[in-house]
Formats: sequence, C-alpha cells, structure tokens
Amino acid sequence: MQSHYLFGGGKFLQTDNSYDVKNPYNEDVVSTTYLAGKKELEAAIDAAVRVSDDLKQLPSHKRYSILKEIADKLEENKEDFALLIAREAAKPYQYALSETKRAIQTFTVAAEEAKRLPKEYISLDWTPAGENKEGLVKYFPVGPVAAISPFNFPLNLAVHKLAPAIAAGCPIILKPATKTPLATLELARIIAQTDLPAGAVSILPMNRETGDMLVTDERLKLLTFTGSPAVGWKMKQNAGKKKVLLELGGNAGVVVAESADIDQAVKRSVVGGFAYAGQVCIHTQRIYVHENIFEKFRDKFIDKVKTLKPGPPDEVTTDITSMIDEDNAKRVGEWVDEAVRNGAEVLTGGKQEGAFYSPTVLTNTKNDMSVCSMEVFGPVVILEKYSNFEHAVNELNYSRYGLQAGVFSDSLKEINYAMNHIHVGGIIINDVPTFRVDHMPYGGVKDSGMGREGIKYAIQEMMESKILVRNT
Amino acid sequence: MQSHYLFGGGKFLQTDNSYDVKNPYNEDVVSTTYLAGKKELEAAIDAAVRVSDDLKQLPSHKRYSILKEIADKLEENKEDFALLIAREAAKPYQYALSETKRAIQTFTVAAEEAKRLPKEYISLDWTPAGENKEGLVKYFPVGPVAAISPFNFPLNLAVHKLAPAIAAGCPIILKPATKTPLATLELARIIAQTDLPAGAVSILPMNRETGDMLVTDERLKLLTFTGSPAVGWKMKQNAGKKKVLLELGGNAGVVVAESADIDQAVKRSVVGGFAYAGQVCIHTQRIYVHENIFEKFRDKFIDKVKTLKPGPPDEVTTDITSMIDEDNAKRVGEWVDEAVRNGAEVLTGGKQEGAFYSPTVLTNTKNDMSVCSMEVFGPVVILEKYSNFEHAVNELNYSRYGLQAGVFSDSLKEINYAMNHIHVGGIIINDVPTFRVDHMPYGGVKDSGMGREGIKYAIQEMMESKILVRNT
Amino acid sequence: MQSHYLFGGGKFLQTDNSYDVKNPYNEDVVSTTYLAGKKELEAAIDAAVRVSDDLKQLPSHKRYSILKEIADKLEENKEDFALLIAREAAKPYQYALSETKRAIQTFTVAAEEAKRLPKEYISLDWTPAGENKEGLVKYFPVGPVAAISPFNFPLNLAVHKLAPAIAAGCPIILKPATKTPLATLELARIIAQTDLPAGAVSILPMNRETGDMLVTDERLKLLTFTGSPAVGWKMKQNAGKKKVLLELGGNAGVVVAESADIDQAVKRSVVGGFAYAGQVCIHTQRIYVHENIFEKFRDKFIDKVKTLKPGPPDEVTTDITSMIDEDNAKRVGEWVDEAVRNGAEVLTGGKQEGAFYSPTVLTNTKNDMSVCSMEVFGPVVILEKYSNFEHAVNELNYSRYGLQAGVFSDSLKEINYAMNHIHVGGIIINDVPTFRVDHMPYGGVKDSGMGREGIKYAIQEMMESKILVRNT
Amino acid sequence: MQSHYLFGGGKFLQTDNSYDVKNPYNEDVVSTTYLAGKKELEAAIDAAVRVSDDLKQLPSHKRYSILKEIADKLEENKEDFALLIAREAAKPYQYALSETKRAIQTFTVAAEEAKRLPKEYISLDWTPAGENKEGLVKYFPVGPVAAISPFNFPLNLAVHKLAPAIAAGCPIILKPATKTPLATLELARIIAQTDLPAGAVSILPMNRETGDMLVTDERLKLLTFTGSPAVGWKMKQNAGKKKVLLELGGNAGVVVAESADIDQAVKRSVVGGFAYAGQVCIHTQRIYVHENIFEKFRDKFIDKVKTLKPGPPDEVTTDITSMIDEDNAKRVGEWVDEAVRNGAEVLTGGKQEGAFYSPTVLTNTKNDMSVCSMEVFGPVVILEKYSNFEHAVNELNYSRYGLQAGVFSDSLKEINYAMNHIHVGGIIINDVPTFRVDHMPYGGVKDSGMGREGIKYAIQEMMESKILVRNT
Repeated sequence: MQSHYLFGGGKFLQTDNSYDVKNPYNEDVVSTTYLAGKKELEAAIDAAVRVSDDLKQLPSHKRYSILKEIADKLEENKEDFALLIAREAAKPYQYALSETKRAIQTFTVAAEEAKRLPKEYISLDWTPAGENKEGLVKYFPVGPVAAISPFNFPLNLAVHKLAPAIAAGCPIILKPATKTPLATLELARIIAQTDLPAGAVSILPMNRETGDMLVTDERLKLLTFTGSPAVGWKMKQNAGKKKVLLELGGNAGVVVAESADIDQAVKRSVVGGFAYAGQVCIHTQRIYVHENIFEKFRDKFIDKVKTLKPGPPDEVTTDITSMIDEDNAKRVGEWVDEAVRNGAEVLTGGKQEGAFYSPTVLTNTKNDMSVCSMEVFGPVVILEKYSNFEHAVNELNYSRYGLQAGVFSDSLKEINYAMNHIHVGGIIINDVPTFRVDHMPYGGVKDSGMGREGIKYAIQEMMESKILVRNT
Repeated sequence: MQSHYLFGGGKFLQTDNSYDVKNPYNEDVVSTTYLAGKKELEAAIDAAVRVSDDLKQLPSHKRYSILKEIADKLEENKEDFALLIAREAAKPYQYALSETKRAIQTFTVAAEEAKRLPKEYISLDWTPAGENKEGLVKYFPVGPVAAISPFNFPLNLAVHKLAPAIAAGCPIILKPATKTPLATLELARIIAQTDLPAGAVSILPMNRETGDMLVTDERLKLLTFTGSPAVGWKMKQNAGKKKVLLELGGNAGVVVAESADIDQAVKRSVVGGFAYAGQVCIHTQRIYVHENIFEKFRDKFIDKVKTLKPGPPDEVTTDITSMIDEDNAKRVGEWVDEAVRNGAEVLTGGKQEGAFYSPTVLTNTKNDMSVCSMEVFGPVVILEKYSNFEHAVNELNYSRYGLQAGVFSDSLKEINYAMNHIHVGGIIINDVPTFRVDHMPYGGVKDSGMGREGIKYAIQEMMESKILVRNT
Repeated sequence: MQSHYLFGGGKFLQTDNSYDVKNPYNEDVVSTTYLAGKKELEAAIDAAVRVSDDLKQLPSHKRYSILKEIADKLEENKEDFALLIAREAAKPYQYALSETKRAIQTFTVAAEEAKRLPKEYISLDWTPAGENKEGLVKYFPVGPVAAISPFNFPLNLAVHKLAPAIAAGCPIILKPATKTPLATLELARIIAQTDLPAGAVSILPMNRETGDMLVTDERLKLLTFTGSPAVGWKMKQNAGKKKVLLELGGNAGVVVAESADIDQAVKRSVVGGFAYAGQVCIHTQRIYVHENIFEKFRDKFIDKVKTLKPGPPDEVTTDITSMIDEDNAKRVGEWVDEAVRNGAEVLTGGKQEGAFYSPTVLTNTKNDMSVCSMEVFGPVVILEKYSNFEHAVNELNYSRYGLQAGVFSDSLKEINYAMNHIHVGGIIINDVPTFRVDHMPYGGVKDSGMGREGIKYAIQEMMESKILVRNT
Repeated sequence: MQSHYLFGGGKFLQTDNSYDVKNPYNEDVVSTTYLAGKKELEAAIDAAVRVSDDLKQLPSHKRYSILKEIADKLEENKEDFALLIAREAAKPYQYALSETKRAIQTFTVAAEEAKRLPKEYISLDWTPAGENKEGLVKYFPVGPVAAISPFNFPLNLAVHKLAPAIAAGCPIILKPATKTPLATLELARIIAQTDLPAGAVSILPMNRETGDMLVTDERLKLLTFTGSPAVGWKMKQNAGKKKVLLELGGNAGVVVAESADIDQAVKRSVVGGFAYAGQVCIHTQRIYVHENIFEKFRDKFIDKVKTLKPGPPDEVTTDITSMIDEDNAKRVGEWVDEAVRNGAEVLTGGKQEGAFYSPTVLTNTKNDMSVCSMEVFGPVVILEKYSNFEHAVNELNYSRYGLQAGVFSDSLKEINYAMNHIHVGGIIINDVPTFRVDHMPYGGVKDSGMGREGIKYAIQEMMESKILVRNT
C-alpha cells in the first residue's frame, strides 16, 4: 500500500490529517496522503522567506543543472508517473503519458530559460540630462510564490508554476488539487534529490480554508492560480499587495471554414472535444461549420466520436473513462437536459452512469444555454452551422470568456479577420483551440484570466526589474 | 480671467460644480475650472468603450503623427505651460519649464514607440506536437484605461499615462489632481485639435468619491495610479478584474562613498533634496556619507543649501517656494520637531511660515523617526555618516519603500554590491535617486508600487498578448 | 544658371574638372558640377579618419537632432528636390516627389534608430568558468565608410547610406552616380548647416578610376555599393579587409494565383512594371498568371498599360518618360528584338525613339531570353500563364538573381509554399516585388547582393561589437 | 595501432595519401589517417549541395536532439577525447580535458539555440504605403559552409563551426589542421550515429592546395576560418561571392591597475600567459602593471611561473610541455633573442630544447620588438610598468591586432575608459584577455578578423534573412 508524505520546507512530513486518494473510475485507493495545516504552511512560508537570498544568487548553471536533473529523472520514470496520473485523475493512460512528456519538456525549457533570464542594456542619452549615462536593467526574483494548481493536469499544470519559479529564483509553495496530489508529491521525491536548497519548493495539499492563507499572507509576493473563474477572481480581491496570475477556464470554440481540410478538422476536433472527457481548460466546446460542408463534417465527426473506446484509465487503449467525480457527471447531465428541453438535439451520447458521461454532441443550441455560455468541462460538444465567417466569429466572441479559439481555413483574409476580431489569448489556425505547446504564451482575456504562462512568460511574471544607471 | 473647461468624450464641458484653482504661494486664482460628476464620468466611459475598436485599428503612422503633433505644439507653447504649472503647483519656473520639456520628450518617445509596439515571432516545433507550426504574438490594447495623477508633476506624470495610452491604442480617462488640473486641461486643447477620435482621451478633475468609480467600473480594464501608498494599495483591492499599476512614493536615499567626487555629490544632492521643496516621489530624503569625507561633504552641502533662493514660483531665479499647502508645511514641521525631540540636530532650516518650509538638513537621526521612515515629501534631508558600505546599504534598505537609490562611488565592488543588495526599482550611480529620464523603466518594489512606467514599459502594461498559431 | 559644388571634408569645392548634368529628356543642362580627383578624395578620407573619434562619442540626442533637422529641411524643400530629381534623372515628377518623401522618412527613422543602437546584456554564468561574470555588448562604429550610389534613385538610395552612417557614428564618403549627382549635392547644403562635425559626410562625384580608391583604400572600413551585379561582385574581390555590402539588381517576378484580387493585381503590376520606365532594382519584370484568370488579367493589364501618359519628367501628370540615356533604350530594344526573333509576342509597345522606349509587354517568352534571365532595367514586362503554383515558383527561381518576389493569393498554403521555396530576400504577398518601405530589411540573395539595408539593418552592418566582461 | 578514416559525404573513407599523426612531445605515432584529395572534396561538396534542402526543413526538435546526442556522447567519452587531444597536440591533459568540456558546452548551447533561431515580426505601417501590411522576417541557412580550423584547439574551435552549422541547417565541410585532425575525426564517429542526414557534415584533412578549393568553390556560400592573419586575409580576397568569417590571432594584453587584487591578477596572468605554452589566440602576451605595484606583481608572478610543472602532455599534473613543433620553438627563441639584443631583460626562462620552450618573462621591451608587436604564439610574456592608465591603454592599442584585452581594476572610471578606448572585440575586467566562455560573442577587430563566433552569433552569420510582407 502506497503512501505519499507532504513536502514542506525541504522535509517530507506527515500530519494528523491523513486521507486516501481514490481512483475515480473504481474508487480504489491509489495512495494515502495528508493535508497540511496552518502549522505546516507557516513553516513552509518561513523556509521560503529564509531561502530567498540563496536562490536569488544561484548561478544559472546551477539552476540549469537542477532543472535538467528533474527533467531527466522524470524521463526515466515517465511510465510510473503516467500510471499514477491515470489512477488519481481517471485520465486515460495515453493522455497521462503525454502529460508527463509535456512536463519533461516544461522542465527542459525552464532549464534553458534559466540561462536566458531577461536583461536589458539601454542608452539613456536621449536628452542632455542623460548624457554619459546608460542603463542596465536586470530582473530579480519577485520573492516567495504561492501556487495553486487544478486536478485536470495534476502534473504539468503544477510544473508550469514550479519550473519557472526555480528558473526565476523564487521559492514556491504549491497547493495541488486535493483530489490529485500524488503526481506532484511523487515529483517532490525527485526535487528533494537535487541541489535545490531546502525550502525552495514545498508541495502541500491542504483544504481551501488553509489555502486562503496562501492568498492573503503578505510574505508571499505573487499568487499564481489555475482553476475556476469564480474562485480565481475572488482571490484577486483578497491578495493584498501581491501580483496575481490567473489561468482560468473558458468555452473555447472553433470555426471550420469552407476551405478547411475536413478530415483533419474532424480528427482534431474529436481530440479537442473529448480528450480527458473535456475536462481541459481549452476543451473544444463549440464547433461552427460552414453550411456548405456542415453535413459532411457532422457525419464524419459523429462517426468518429462513436469509435471512442471507453475503459479503465490505466489501460493503454482507453480513449474515454470516468469524469473526476459523479457530481460533475450529474452537472453535465443537467446542462444537457436543459439544452434539450429548450430545443437542442442530441446527435450522439447524452447518457450518465455514475462518474461516466458518454461523449455527447449537440446541435440546434442557443447561445444562452449553459452548454454554450458556461464552461462545460465535460465530454460535450455543440455543433452548429454558419453561413458567414464574420458571423461565426461573433458567435465565438459571444462569451464571458476568452482563452483560445481555432480556425480551420486556408484563406488569408479569414485568418486575418480572426486574428483581428476574435477576442482571446490564442488563435489556432488549422487546429483546435485545445492546442498548446509548453513554451508558447498561454492565457486568457476577459473572464478567462490575466497574465501569461509558457515558461519564459511565467518567468517574466515572477521577476521584477531593477535598473542600474551608470556613467559611460 | 482664465477658465478651463473639462474635456470629456471629446467635448469641452462645464458642470455646476465650478471651483477656483489657486496659486499656493499667494492664493491668487489662477483659473476657474469644474469638477466632473458621475454623469460626465459615465459619458466619458461610454465614449471610451465606443471608440476602442477605432483606436485599436489606428495605423502606427497615425498614432505617430498625432503624438508628434502634440509634442510639437507643446514645444511651441512651452513657456506658457511652464508658467501655468508654476502658478497652479507653486513650482519654481525653472523646474516647471524642465517638466514641460520632459513632457515634450515623453510624447516624442511615445510617438516613436507607437511604431515599435511589441511583436514576437516564435518557432513552435520544439516538440513533434508543434511541427510545421509557428506563432505570431501580437499585442492588442487592453481596453479603456483609468488614470489618476498627482499634484507634484501636474503635466509630465499625467503625460506618462496619456502618451502610452495613445501609443498603445487605449482610450484613457484621466483624473488629474484637483489642486493642479490646469496643465492637463490646457493640454486637452492641443489634443482636441489632433486627429485622435473623440472619446479617446478625457480629462476630468473630480472629487475622490466620483473618482472611486474609476477604480471599480468593470468597463475600465486597467487602473494606473500615481500617488500616495495608502491610497494606491487600497485601490488595488477594489479594482475588480482590472490590471493595476501603482507608482507610489518612498524615502529614497543616497550613499556617498569615499571614492566619490564630493563636489558633484554635493551639487546633485542639493537638487535631489530641495527641487520643488522635496515634493517629488524620488526626493533625496536620506544621505549616508562615508566617515572619512563626512565633515567635508556636510560643510559644502550646508553652504550650498543656504544659497537656495526663495521667491515666488513664477520668477525665473527662484529655487524654492511654498509647498502645495499649509497643511503639508505644518506636517513637515511636526515631523522635524519629533526628530529634534528625540535627539536629531538641525544643521540648517527647520522653520515654517504659512505654506513655506525652509530647506532643512538634519543629522543624528534614528531610523524610526518619521523623517527617516516615512515619505517626508517636503524640503527635509537627513545626513548621516557611515563607516562600512554594507552597513550603509542596510540603512537604505531599512524602509517599507523601494523606489530608487543613489550611490556616489568609483568602486566596481561597491557598485555591484549596491546592485545586488539595495532593494529598489532603480539604482543611480554617481547621481541622486531623484534622477529620471523619461524612457527608462521607472517604478518601485515593496510598498513603493507595482508595474513600471517609462513609455515602452507603460505601453507594454497597457497591452495584452494574442498568439496566432499557424502552419508554416 | 545653377551650379553645384562638391562637398568634401566639410567644405564646398570646385575642381578643374567641371561638367554639365543634363536632363535626359531634352538634353537641357540642369546644373554644372565637378568631378573630384584623387586630391579631393584623399582630403576627404583624411578628414573622415580625423573626425571618427568625435563621431563615435556623439551622444544619441545629438545624432537624433542632426538627422531630424535634415529630415525637416528636406520636408520644407521637398518640391524643389523633386524637381531636381525629375530633371537630372528623367524621373516623372510624381515618382520624384514620392522618392523625396521616402528620403525624409529614411532620415526620420534613422534619427529614431540613433537612439536605439544595438546593445546586449548577457549572463555568462552558464558554466562555472563564467560564475559571477556578465557581459555588456556594445556596438561601435566600424569606421569611415565608402558609399557608391546609383542613378535611379539619386536621393533615397544615397540616403540609405548617409542616414545610417550618421546614426551609427561612421564618417562617410559618398560617390553619387555621375549622371545624377545633383540631389545629393543639394542635400549637402542642408547637411552643412547642421552640427555634424566637418568631414563626417563628403559627397564627391568622381569618375570610376578615382572611385576605385574608395574600394581599395584600407582606411575605409566598409564599402556599401548599390548598382549593377557585375561591378559589385568585382569590388568585393578588391576590397581588401573591408566589410562589403552589395545591393544589386535582379529580374523580379510576381505570381498571380487564381484566388487573387485581379483588379488589385493589375493595378499594382502596372506600377511595378513601368514606374520610372522599369529602371528600378525591384522592377516587376516577370508576371506569371494562373491559367484560369490569364486572359482576364492580360486584357485588363494591357488596357491599363496603354493609358500610361508619356511626357516630360517635370510635369505632374507624366507617367512615363525617357530612360536615363539612349544607349539603354537601344539595349532594351535589342533584347526585345532578340525575344521576338525567338518566338516571343509583343502584346503592346516595343518601340524605341531616342532615349524613350515605349511600355512593352511580351508573352510566349523562354527563360533563357535576355528579357527573362537578365535584368532588363527598362519598361519591359513578360507575362506568362501557369497551371501549377509550384511550377510558377520554379519559374521565379529560374534566375541568377534573388532580390524580391510578389505573390497575389489568398491561400495560406500557397503563401507558405512561396515563403519556403522562393529564393529571394523578400516576398510580397498581394503586392508586386517592387514594394518597399524604408525601414524593412531589404537586400538580395544569390547574385543580387549581400547584406541588408533598411536603416536598422544598415546601421547594424556599419557597427562592430565589443563585449565588456565584468564581475557581478 | 589506431587509425582514423576521413568522413566525407556521410561515409568513412581511406585515400592513397595516408599519413601518421605524431605526438609532438615524443614523436610517437598517435594514429594513422589520410589526406583528402580533390575527388573526395568534390564528392563532399556534391553531397552538401544535395542535402541542403533536407537540412533547411529539419524541425528544431530534431536539430536539438541531434546536437544534444552529440553532446551526451562526448560527455560519456570525455577522457578519451582529452587523451587524444593531449597526444596529437601536445596539450597538457588538464587543458585537453577542459577543452573537451567546453566542446560539450558548445554543442549543448547550439542545441538550445537551434530552437531559438532569429525571427522578427515587424509592423510596416509607418507610412501610408505600408498600411495594413506587416513583415515576418525569417532566417534561412545560407547554404554549404567551408570551415577551416587550427591546431591549437583541435576539438572546440572546430566545434565552434560544426555546431552552429548544424543548428542553422547548413551543410559543412571542415578541414581540420593537418597536424591535429584526430579529435574531429573521432567526433565524426559520434556524428555518424545521429539522425543527421548523410553529407551534412564532412571532416576532411587535406593539404593547403586542395584546401584552396574550399575558398574558391562557388557552391560553398560561406567560409569560416580560424587561423593566422596572413592566411585569413588572403582567403578573403579569393573567396568570390562567399561571406567570409575570420577568427585570427593577436598579441593580447592586460593592464593591472593600482586597485587590482594582485594575487588574483598574478594567478590569472600565469594561466593566460602559459596555458598550452601560449599557443592560444587570446594568449596573454603583454602585461602592463601600475608602477606602485609593479615590483610586488613582478616578484609574485615570476615565483608562480617558476612553479609551472613541465612534463609529458598525457600526464594529469603537467602544466607545460612541448610546443606544436620544433620550428615554432626555434622561432620563439629567435624573437626572444632579438628582444634581448635590443635591450630586453629576461626575468625567467628563455631556453629552447627541441620543441620545448621554457616559460619566459621579458621586461624592458620596446613596442616594435617582435615579442611585442607580432603574435608570439608561444610561452613568452612581456611585463612592463606604467604610470598613467590612459598611457597603458595606448600601449595595448599599439598593435595591428584587436582581439581581446584584460583590465584588473576596481575603478569604474578606468573600466569605462577601457571600454571606450581599447580597440578590440572584447575587454575582460578583472581577468586576463584569455578568458572566453563559449556562448559569448567572440572575435576581433583590426587585423584580428571579422565576424563573431559564440554559437548564437555564428548561427546568425550562417543565415540570411527573408522577409514575408503580408496583409494584416
């Protein structure tokens, strides 16, 4: 029987508050772990403050070798990590493995970026006042970072906070999702073997009440949160003098124009719509297809959705399995029912059984239905036709959110129109909005968040500039 | 008799709430103006929202020519602007003229930067998932900006918000300080003649209660505030989903090392300490001099302070005149008295008369006296000796604030130590912390603020990124 | 009767070798000027060497104001400059005016770039050997520059050498084309009024033999030549230790794909093909049109070519006038005749009369005809159909040259194919290869040259890096 | 008995022209290898041309993994490589190992830079002509590269050409020094195991006559040469249309100011002066010490030079061993004799025995002695006193060369003076000119060369820009 200790201030810890992490697919206990209390969190913050100066002075070759060592050890153990993620999060093994590989890449890129921290060298003699002076702008770590990561990518979305913090020289205290803390606690074992000073990284599952201290404590200089919009925006208000980064969700959509490669669009849309049962921030929730190819696209799409293989998460061939819990499956069911009551048609799926919700495609929806306007975070896709590209763009923009969007089109005019008019953080041409590589700038506008992740960008957010003005 | 209308939504406006702007030096009325109410503010916000798309699409050559036209017309009228500032703010004419010249430079640089908005072109094929894809990262205006500027640089600190907003393509609503609204309202007359679409810039003096709407209204996407720390940090809490930039104050200090050019250090320290009666965010408040040169520095410094010529603000030869109001002069007096009661010695000055406070130098102070630990924002400088450079740096860091610091030294070791250990936004070698040229990154750490101004940096803050991922 | 003195080492000079610059259209003398001999050139080189250090130390605000003053004075006198260019080069007034405006822009951008010279600030601690060290990379002027500019843009192609040199801090000696030296000698009068130190700029028409000294003299550190390939490549061999920049010609082509906006393509192709009688480095010499729209394009194109209005160069309404001399008109005639003899068809034009050659469109050409494979540098365009985009790209690439190419298409696939496969320095989408704005990187591959102009890029070429490695 | 085949066009080859590589220390045969003839070179060029397109299209993750694989395998075999270098070049093992580690770093950084090839995204709407247009500037490999590397760093100076070429996507043909070809031929065995397409890298020792074809063949688009000035500048003349990079030698010097840390200056100067018997491009040949510390420095320096341990190159404890051949030892001896004849004093050393020349320090030299003005490339250092910093800088500049210089000083004024007035490619503060880390820009001015190496910079030289102008 496995167990995973907390990792706080450089030590592995137990608390009185133990609890079992269960596989959502079959309720098997995956491992026993603990919740940190105020005492453990306080100690971790203390350690973070104490280690700040050491980290700031760590030369880049050491940051590099620490981050590279973590990447290399993750690579050696990638199947184990994938299995752990598969079980704690009910994520099909193929996706869990792909997440692990991305986490390796995230650490690798962070290692490289640790050597390329921003620096500027500027002339100041643009007026007589600055004559014989020049400026060296150097970026210093902002200080201890509070990080809160979600259940859906238990490893890589945490790594998108841990790796930049190490690169930037910021101590970091991570609160993983309480449902899925194991991958990061396993990662802690690797981190503990490196030369990173004790206290530089703490990984502490905790309940929300304790977690609030991460938001409010003034010794923590930056809060980086990935999770739901409601929670995120509330945190911003309570964060005091901290900088706040919010990576929240959305109801991302894609436009399939007449000039699209239909087979490619279908193939990618099935992945975007149903990978990890749609529990993805950039889940492809809404698909708008040009009327001239709508039927063709619809038929091929439905055919392909029907081939998705259900099964237990830890089997290699499984495409789709349980959602994170039954409550969420029920919620999705209610939203689909609401849609159907108001005129939507179910093209496939629409069935709930325990935590499992079948891959579902709806059409004839209206913009104000929950399945359209809210973040469905489940295996539901709506499919609608359009006749005019500008109108399709309006549909995409009809949302409180603005994370990413996709456009399948070969027309430069349409692509330019999309770039200029879709109000999101990223537009993916000839692919679904679900596309992300780990070094690209990633993040939302409108209610989908503020700030950008993507290693280099996250590092930049975690640093503050200092200019040295000197004689020349 | 002059009068200055408000400038809202592209129109010059009167309201029922007129009021007289007085010269603090002699209580003469400089001009009559108005306070905007909720109605005027609401209309300005509406106009800002409506004009957003037009501004976003403005080609860079138009942004350039609008900003350049403003700079050129300011240049033509620079003496008039200087006189207006001198009178509304009781700023000695020589400093008012220099502020006007800096505002011209701020607009000029913004014109140039409007053609150089950030853009990135990145490869995405770092993993097989990104093969044949690349990314174009473009920065779009964040939307309507709320700006609040202080009394001490009535023109240029407002221009540090207006000019970047125009360059970035953001509509902006500026609340100037109610005591000193005239320079920006005069500027509005220039702006109104350009091709900038109506509603792009509004300049509305208003009371603090109305001003709160600038902080809370969700249609405004960014709040940029220059002013006092207490007010600024409170605003951050109430700003909802907005981005917040805070340029607050400090108690900046300078170290004069043994290798310093003493005459140069004295000359610059007098300017840093007493320009505009110390009512400057980066006022040189604390001077730490190496013990081996302390007496020499002290004597030369006091001699020079005594030569500062008092007089009315609108005379060319005046070095020092009234503070912004009598309340502030009294407050400064109380702080000096507190210091003296606790053992400080007055080397020169220490006298209040109405709004005038005489240039004052204290020594034998302690770190917890108000004149040391608080932002004195008046013509008071403390002068202490040190024996060890690291200790002097500790003294500088003994502060809630961290805006800028100065170091007079020829030693690379000391300069490096300063860069690595003084916790501020800017370190000025062989000059006072009061040094600023308008295109350098400027802003504080700790309680002195968040974010950076300096045109290019302010523009960056006013934009949000969008990536276009496309096939190659 | 006008006369133009030489400008050498800061002085206006006469020599024994006077000569008359004539208007190629009517052989009227435009002005009398002089050829520099070895003595004048030697003196200019001496002055350039002597002034090098002063220029290197010129603060950026002075470089800015000098360049801006030149731009402003050119603006004030733009009609006079346009008329002078029209007459000395037989360039239709509308194009001469447009060239003058571009020269103003070139100086303006150079003024701005003078404040933004490249600088790098890099960390060196990537290995233990570099621990506690960092690097400041600063770019210094390479030294005195030799510049040779052609007759076809007598002002702006010279300014593309003069303005970056002033911005970079390099003294420069310019040899304008002997046929068209007047615009730059007129410019010298403006330059002489600025604060630029004497000797920083010399403008010396000279014969080729004297000009060879510009190539071989080792005190000159960089040679920048715009002109014919044969001459340019020969210079590279004789340039000793100098850096060499070559902006040579080509036989640029454009592809008009089926998705193109035909009217736009026709309109721009007529400009690209016949502006200044095709005497343009990026003259649109070859047009490949998709077979499905070939007839339509051809008919509209020929119609439009026939509307081109011939006339004297100094009339505002003139579209086309004499070539630079009768020899060139004869040469073009021979090439057209050769083409016709080998099967080409003349769709319009084909007539020579003195220095005038009528706007000519050929079809049914073969790749090895001179009108295809050589740089025609005259008012001749070949028009061919294609059925397959890749084949059209092959046609474009069938050339010793590689300056620019144009593609009219709305297809992202075709645009990407063009970018990846057309071997040139610039590809213009939905416009002709003749498109250039002055700050873009411009220059050729293959036999079309080496190095890039475009102010920022030219400045970079004129500087050499020096790294300061220092402790941190 | 070892043997090393040539590596041409992806194959390991023998030729009729075999020859033995001997250890200069004891004339033992280290391995037998071959000289390529025109046939082999022709085949390699053919293969390079054929593979160009494939390389251009290699995604960055493949370039990365190929380069990283080479780095990793070098790491695994680093002691073997060090031993091979020690023997073929008579380089003390400790320096040979350090060279090998640097080669690993060079490949590692190249792997990272392959993902960060330059790309620019620029706005073009600075004038109405560019409205609605923007530019994407991408850098493409320049084509097949000819590379010639010297004997003194048989591995890493070749790797500074090979690694950037692979990163940039250029095929490369390397001619290693005929005396020391083994390290690169051993490296070929590693390269051959990667996924790099056959023909991308050829490593061909050849005599100078055959090597001339590398200079003149027009299919090779860039020549990168590290070696002696006389040979390099001659090549530039014969290189046809090629770009040419020259990394030549110098007579680098260092100034030790009064504020220097003497022990550190002594320690580093001994390394800079005698590592690899001074056979280093940035060998510390000239030392200028402030008169107030001259005697102290001199005594400590001589003491330390006398502790240098002579021995065979393949022993770990050896500090100094034979030069590359007896001819060079004799040449050095003659130069020392010439100096002595003209008044120089030998402080230590001055003895030749076979290929060994003893570590030698001279004083009372004059600037025109060969040991001062020429590149001594042997274990000889001249040591002189100075009284005035500016005068010491003049001494450094009294040279045809300008590679690097060192300054030991704590004075910002002196450091700034050095940066502004020493005419070299790099100035090293508080270290010897012999300092180099592999990613810094490295290269000379004056007769020391043109262009810069340092991976990122070498990559940039190996690419040419192409701009795509497109609608927005």
